[in-house]
Amino acid sequence: MTACWIDDPAFTASSPFGPQTLPYGVVETPDGPSVAVRVGDHALPLRPIAAEFTPDLRELVTAASLDPLLAAGRPAWSVLRARLRELVTAPAAPAGAVLLPLAETTTRLPFTVGDYVDFYSSRDHAENVGRIFRPDAEPLLPNWTHLPVGYHGRAGTVVVSGTDVVRPHGQRRGAEGPEFGPSTRLDIEAEIGFVCGGPVAGRVSTSSAPDHVFGVAVVNDWSARDIQAWEYVPLGPFLGKSFATSISAWITPLEAFAAARVKVPDPGHPRLDYLVEDQNWGLDLHLEVVWNGTVVSRPDFAGMAYSCAQQLAHMTVNGATVRPGDLFASGTVSGPEKRQRGSFLELSWSGAEPITLEDGSTRTFLEDGDTVTITATAPGPDGSVVGLAEVTGTVVAAP
Amino acid sequence: MTACWIDDPAFTASSPFGPQTLPYGVVETPDGPSVAVRVGDHALPLRPIAAEFTPDLRELVTAASLDPLLAAGRPAWSVLRARLRELVTAPAAPAGAVLLPLAETTTRLPFTVGDYVDFYSSRDHAENVGRIFRPDAEPLLPNWTHLPVGYHGRAGTVVVSGTDVVRPHGQRRGAEGPEFGPSTRLDIEAEIGFVCGGPVAGRVSTSSAPDHVFGVAVVNDWSARDIQAWEYVPLGPFLGKSFATSISAWITPLEAFAAARVKVPDPGHPRLDYLVEDQNWGLDLHLEVVWNGTVVSRPDFAGMAYSCAQQLAHMTVNGATVRPGDLFASGTVSGPEKRQRGSFLELSWSGAEPITLEDGSTRTFLEDGDTVTITATAPGPDGSVVGLAEVTGTVVAAP
Repeated sequence: MTACWIDDPAFTASSPFGPQTLPYGVVETPDGPSVAVRVGDHALPLRPIAAEFTPDLRELVTAASLDPLLAAGRPAWSVLRARLRELVTAPAAPAGAVLLPLAETTTRLPFTVGDYVDFYSSRDHAENVGRIFRPDAEPLLPNWTHLPVGYHGRAGTVVVSGTDVVRPHGQRRGAEGPEFGPSTRLDIEAEIGFVCGGPVAGRVSTSSAPDHVFGVAVVNDWSARDIQAWEYVPLGPFLGKSFATSISAWITPLEAFAAARVKVPDPGHPRLDYLVEDQNWGLDLHLEVVWNGTVVSRPDFAGMAYSCAQQLAHMTVNGATVRPGDLFASGTVSGPEKRQRGSFLELSWSGAEPITLEDGSTRTFLEDGDTVTITATAPGPDGSVVGLAEVTGTVVAAP
Repeated sequence: MTACWIDDPAFTASSPFGPQTLPYGVVETPDGPSVAVRVGDHALPLRPIAAEFTPDLRELVTAASLDPLLAAGRPAWSVLRARLRELVTAPAAPAGAVLLPLAETTTRLPFTVGDYVDFYSSRDHAENVGRIFRPDAEPLLPNWTHLPVGYHGRAGTVVVSGTDVVRPHGQRRGAEGPEFGPSTRLDIEAEIGFVCGGPVAGRVSTSSAPDHVFGVAVVNDWSARDIQAWEYVPLGPFLGKSFATSISAWITPLEAFAAARVKVPDPGHPRLDYLVEDQNWGLDLHLEVVWNGTVVSRPDFAGMAYSCAQQLAHMTVNGATVRPGDLFASGTVSGPEKRQRGSFLELSWSGAEPITLEDGSTRTFLEDGDTVTITATAPGPDGSVVGLAEVTGTVVAAP
């Protein structure tokens, strides 16, 4: 890479947020919230350099959220990304450019969440949860290998990385009927989220699905296992999940993952036509789950049984529309090894096997004050690395 | 009632849409979409008579949707309703007033749906479905009498009454693995919906819940039973529901139901504190389900096991926020008698007992071209009747 105007050692091809990545977010500026791109450990707000863009793009980059950009669709996304790449790798700074150190910058939830869907596409996770929640039955239910099982979550409680998570109250099973109080089994789910954009569409095929996926983020689907276990039959998880779902402040464009695309594992039987992919949309992502500073798990995304294209094709095969701002998440990413499990329910085997942190303390589920941070990286073009921004949150005591 | 300027025989205290009701909707006018109130069989758009309102209210009634009104909160709702009551019962018409015959008027989805939650609060319905879907188990699961079971549905596919419903494609269980095709068991669910408003709030108590419920509508939660039966374990209904949910074009304000409030049935055991009501928020509503012109069911809402206040208190007890535009529905309203069942799954007992319509034809599930219309009424003040506007839809063949 030749010298460029951005003087940040984290802005290189071997760093997750070099010019090969360029994720979008929204940051607070003295002039109000601004669309920004992340360059290394800095945010580059786009409104101050709006003059560098064509009028069409200018409308998108001067907005207070990513909503107009999400609606603009794939052609605009490609043109804007190419132009940004020019600007951030140029020898001289665009007139008016301001670089904000991330450590001193407030990020906002970058888009208005439409519908939020959570899938369940890790076979290891589904089998682990099946063994824990339904010990007397087959761990995998018969539908699982034929369709990406999923459900709708609460869009109104999707929060940006850094937002505290208040321990939820709720009902749980007790020895003599239900008990009520703060959750005693508060957990995480390490997931990958897909942010939708482009025109409103129904019945999206796997081959056109990428035109409706703007970008990728890390999601923590906080889960209260005691509430969930009592409430979830027969209509699925509800209050055990709906108190908070955290998402990275920075959304990495789907285009950045060209070198990370892999084939999803063979299900061992033919797929129904609408789930067949003519291109690979599995992603070779490597996640890291950090609990109070200790890396407790490193799940690999490449083992997920369904790709984002298959999930979107399934979600709309009944004619349901997808809109800009819709968000769907992969489901907990767990691998076959213990230290690849993406939830503490699995890591501690429902509390039976405590996890020891680097400070010598042990954990099964989350304690008040605990902080969990999840990150992910992928192989980028020409040996570079592409990053997904962290999603982090700290547990606050129930009121 | 003294003579008033509105010359419509359906605008009387003994008619469901007299001055005791005054539901809100959004209608197309030559000047674009306008907030309106329904008076008998007419719509009264409010923008043309905006001069009749104080500046605060004027902002709400000149909008293109009910969104600002929903956000305004209970005090504004009360003041606006009182002012409308004056205007529609006055001897002379306000300057500029236009009455649009409903038969010639296009209505729109009147508000932006935030999160959509569907409950499951009819004991008869839950027991019937339990017997049909899980014949070898107890029909009612242990949690049901302790909490209002519910799940999130798809907000982006909530459509206004009158919108055609396209028969969805999907997977269903087959003799030799899953089959794919248009649903063969397309059904309805007759429900009552509650439209939320007021300030964004978390953990709403039963006593303050009414400050967050703007109004009431009829909902048809269209359901593809074959898709649902195959997909719903373990995370609940998804594509069997998400293709369409219809809602009345007119939202009747909660205030109109003062004379319809009743106590919810005693569960036979103490309630957890957060579900105890200090006022009655059960509602004495009478529903009617019409299939191609034949009344096939008359479910009563007064038997529902949980009130809207209990449902909202439960939905937020974990700290989840409720926002203006959030919609929650009661779940299918079924009574103990066969002709009080609110779904065709129950009415035909999963297809085993066909229903004969007035034209001599028989039905189990919906056929292409079928039209279903659901209405409801409640006792109003001084012996009047308060109406909930119809929700209607016609099934269109799968593409």
